[in-house]
Amino acid sequence: MNDSRTLAIEYARQNRERFLKELMEWVAIPSISTSPEHKQDIQRAAEWVAGQLQAMGMENVQVMPTGGHPVVYGEWLGAGKSAPTILIYGHYDVQPADPLELWDNPPFEPAQRGEYLYGRGMSDMKGQVMASLKAVESIVRSGTLPVNVKWLIEGEEEVGSEHLGEFIQTHKDLLACDLSLNPDSGMMSPTQPTITYALRGLMYAEIRVYGPKRDLHSGLFGGAVHNPAQALAELIAGMHDENGRVTLPGFYDKVRPLSPEERADLARLPISDQALLQQTGAPALWGEPEYLPVERIGARPTLEVNGLLSGFTGEGSKTVLPAWAMAKISCRLVPDQTPEETFRQLVAYLEAKAPASIRWEVRNLHNARPAITDRNNIGIQALSRAMQTVWGIPPLFKREGGSIGAVVFIQKGLGAESLLTGFGLPDDNVHSPNEKLHLPTWEKGIEALIHFFYNLKP
Amino acid sequence: MNDSRTLAIEYARQNRERFLKELMEWVAIPSISTSPEHKQDIQRAAEWVAGQLQAMGMENVQVMPTGGHPVVYGEWLGAGKSAPTILIYGHYDVQPADPLELWDNPPFEPAQRGEYLYGRGMSDMKGQVMASLKAVESIVRSGTLPVNVKWLIEGEEEVGSEHLGEFIQTHKDLLACDLSLNPDSGMMSPTQPTITYALRGLMYAEIRVYGPKRDLHSGLFGGAVHNPAQALAELIAGMHDENGRVTLPGFYDKVRPLSPEERADLARLPISDQALLQQTGAPALWGEPEYLPVERIGARPTLEVNGLLSGFTGEGSKTVLPAWAMAKISCRLVPDQTPEETFRQLVAYLEAKAPASIRWEVRNLHNARPAITDRNNIGIQALSRAMQTVWGIPPLFKREGGSIGAVVFIQKGLGAESLLTGFGLPDDNVHSPNEKLHLPTWEKGIEALIHFFYNLKP
Repeated sequence: MNDSRTLAIEYARQNRERFLKELMEWVAIPSISTSPEHKQDIQRAAEWVAGQLQAMGMENVQVMPTGGHPVVYGEWLGAGKSAPTILIYGHYDVQPADPLELWDNPPFEPAQRGEYLYGRGMSDMKGQVMASLKAVESIVRSGTLPVNVKWLIEGEEEVGSEHLGEFIQTHKDLLACDLSLNPDSGMMSPTQPTITYALRGLMYAEIRVYGPKRDLHSGLFGGAVHNPAQALAELIAGMHDENGRVTLPGFYDKVRPLSPEERADLARLPISDQALLQQTGAPALWGEPEYLPVERIGARPTLEVNGLLSGFTGEGSKTVLPAWAMAKISCRLVPDQTPEETFRQLVAYLEAKAPASIRWEVRNLHNARPAITDRNNIGIQALSRAMQTVWGIPPLFKREGGSIGAVVFIQKGLGAESLLTGFGLPDDNVHSPNEKLHLPTWEKGIEALIHFFYNLKP
Repeated sequence: MNDSRTLAIEYARQNRERFLKELMEWVAIPSISTSPEHKQDIQRAAEWVAGQLQAMGMENVQVMPTGGHPVVYGEWLGAGKSAPTILIYGHYDVQPADPLELWDNPPFEPAQRGEYLYGRGMSDMKGQVMASLKAVESIVRSGTLPVNVKWLIEGEEEVGSEHLGEFIQTHKDLLACDLSLNPDSGMMSPTQPTITYALRGLMYAEIRVYGPKRDLHSGLFGGAVHNPAQALAELIAGMHDENGRVTLPGFYDKVRPLSPEERADLARLPISDQALLQQTGAPALWGEPEYLPVERIGARPTLEVNGLLSGFTGEGSKTVLPAWAMAKISCRLVPDQTPEETFRQLVAYLEAKAPASIRWEVRNLHNARPAITDRNNIGIQALSRAMQTVWGIPPLFKREGGSIGAVVFIQKGLGAESLLTGFGLPDDNVHSPNEKLHLPTWEKGIEALIHFFYNLKP
C-alpha cells in the first residue's frame, strides 16, 4: 500500500518533462468558448483530452454533445461498489487572450520562463485538469486506483456553464457519484494549500413599485401621491437594520451557526481588511460588526441591491413624479437557507411593509442553493491529510461568497457536494495577459492528488 | 367715471362680432413654436398682434428679436407716474395640432359651433391675449386708460420660454412694472372665476453615492462593503419621516404659515380626493395628514425623487454590487423658502447622515423661487372686485404646485409678482384636438378686465 503510493509519486517525478510537454500541447489549442470562430478548436481540445483519458486506460470515454460545446466523459469503476466514486470536474475552454500586445509570448504558443509556464488556460484550468489527469495516470501506471473515478470535463465554464445543468440532469445515472473533486479553485500562496468547502447560494428577485398610472408633473401632484421611487427606497432601506442585519422575517432562522473551530480556521485566512479595502476601493468596510469581513463574505447571508431604475435618469433636470420604480435585489445564502424560502420571506416583508399608497410586484428571477461539504467528510479528510503530507502544514479552509455553476448543477442533479481546491495562485493572471502556472506548486499538486486518492481507500 | 366704465363695456358688447372675427383671423395663423417649419407663421402671428397694439393706440410697439422667437412689445404710459404700471403677459405661440384626424374642423380653420369657437390656440392662449387686448381697446376707444400698461407677448411659451429670462434681464428698464397680469391660467368652471395667487418654487439636485471603485461581484464582496444603491436608498428613505414630512434640517423654518382665512379659501376649491385619485390613478392619496391634498400640492413644500439609477437595470439577473448610485431629487418650495437655502439643507442632511462607508456628491441643477402675490395686493383686490361684479360671486383663490417660466423670470428680472388668471375652462381641450373657447365666459372675461383696469385707478 505505502509501496504503490510511493511508486506513483516516483512515476510522476520521472515523467515530469513529458507531463509539461503534454500540457503545453493542450494549451496550444485556442479553445476560446466565447467566440464562434473557435468552434473547431473547442472540438480539438475536447478530443485531445478524451485521448488522454483513453490512453491512461479510462473506459467508456466519450465526447458527448450538449446544446453548446461538448462534454468529455470517461470512467474507471474497477474499485467496486464498496469504494467511493469521485466525479472529477474540469473545463477545457479558456478565456479570450486579448489584449495580445501585453503578452510576452503568444498566448497559444506556451513558453517556460524560470519556474513558470506561460499561456492562456495554463492555470485556468488546463493546468489543473492535467494535474488530476497525471495524478490518476501515475497511480494506474504503477498500481491500481483505490477508488472509482468519473470525469466530467466541460467546454462552457467561461460562458457560464450554460448547458451543463441540462446535461447533468439527462445523464444522472452515468454521472452518479459520492463526491465531486473540483480543482478550479486555488491556493492562497505557494506555501498555503487551500480547500474551499462552501459556496453561498443565491436568490435573485426583481421588485417593481407602481404609483400613478403615468409619470406625473411633480409640481402639479407632488405632495398628494406617494412617489414610487421614494416608496421603493423606503422599502429597500428597511431591509437592513442599523447593524447591517437583514430584516426579512425569518431570514436567519435556518442559518447554520459557525462553530468556534470553524471561526478560528476562517480567521487564519490571510485576508486583511487592508487588502479588501485595496481590492474594492471602498472608503471603508461595512457589515455585521460581530463577524469578520471574511466571515461576512463567505459564511453569512446578505441582501444586495443589484440595480435601481426609476423616472428620469438622463442629463439635467426633469420634474417628473415617476409612475414606477424597479429594484433588482439578491440574497447570498448559506446553509441551510433555501432560495425558495428566502423568496417567500421577501414577499412576506413586502406584504408587511408596503404601504397602501403604492402597488408592488416581485418576481423570482434566479436561484442557487448554498453548497457546503461537511468538514468531517471523507473527501475533505483525505485531501487535508494529503496536503499536510506534501506541504508539511495543514491546509487553509475557506468559504467563498459566490456560486459556481458546476457545483450548483452537480449538487442539484446528482445530490453530491463538491470539494473545491486547485494549485493555481492569486498572481497567476487568470483572465489577463501572461497567464502562468507555478510549476513547483503544480508538481506538489499532482503529488497531493496521488495521496488524496490513496487516502480515500476504504 | 362710472360713465366711462359703462361706455367701455358698451363698446365691447357692440364690437363682439368683430372681436370674434379678429380672434379667428389670428388663430388661423399656425404659429407652432415646436417645429422649425413654422418660423414664418411665428413671425406672422407676432406681426399680427403688433398690428393690433398699434391700431388701438399703443406706443413704442416693436417685434423684438430674442435668441429664439421674437417678443412683441407695446406700451401706453399716459396715466402718469402716480398710476400703477401693469405688464400684461401673453404668448402667441401654440402647441402642435396632431393628431389632425381627431379634429372636427381643421385646427387652423377656426369654426364656431354653438357657444364655442374651435381651433388650436383658441383657449391657450390667443383667446386670452385677445380678451386683454379687447378690454384695453374698449377702454381707450371710449375713454382713457386709468393705469399704464406694457405688453410682453412671447413666442416660446410652449417650448419652455427658453429665451424669455435673458430677454427680460436685458430689457429691465423697458419692462419695469408694478404688477404683471398673466391670463394664461383659467377658471374652475363657467360659474367659478378664479385667481391663482401663488406658485411653488423648485430646487433640483442630483446626488451620487460612490462605493467600490468599480462594479464588484456581489458574491465575492457582498457583506463586506456598503452597497451604494442600498446606501442611497437609506439616505432617500430618511428624507421623510413617518408622517410624510421632509426631514432636511430647517426645511420648514421659513415656510409661511397658512392663515385660517387662506385655508378656508383653499378648502372651497372644487378639487375632491376622488378627482385626484382618478386623475393620477394612484392607489391612494398620501402626504402630510394635517393638510388637505389641495394644500399639500399648492401651499406645502415637498421633496420628490425624480429619478433613480444604479447597477444592472436590463432584463434578467446580473449579480453586480454597483460602484455608484444616482438619484435626482427636487423640492417644491413655498414662500419664504429659497432654493439656495434648501440646497444647503440638503447638503447638511447628507453631511449628517451619509455613512463613512460611502462617498457622495451633490449638484444643484436648477432653481426657481416660489411666487406669491399678497391677497391684499391692489391687483388682487381690483380683479377680485371685477369678478364679483361680472359673475355676482367672489372668485376662488388658488395656489398652484408648479413653476411657470414667465412668472419666475418676471419676478427675478423685474421684481414684480404675477396675477394669474384667465377665462379658459378645464374642458377646453388645450394641447388636445378640438381645442375650444367658451364664448359667454370669454365675453364676461373682457368685461371683468375692463372693470379690473378701472378698479386699479388710484
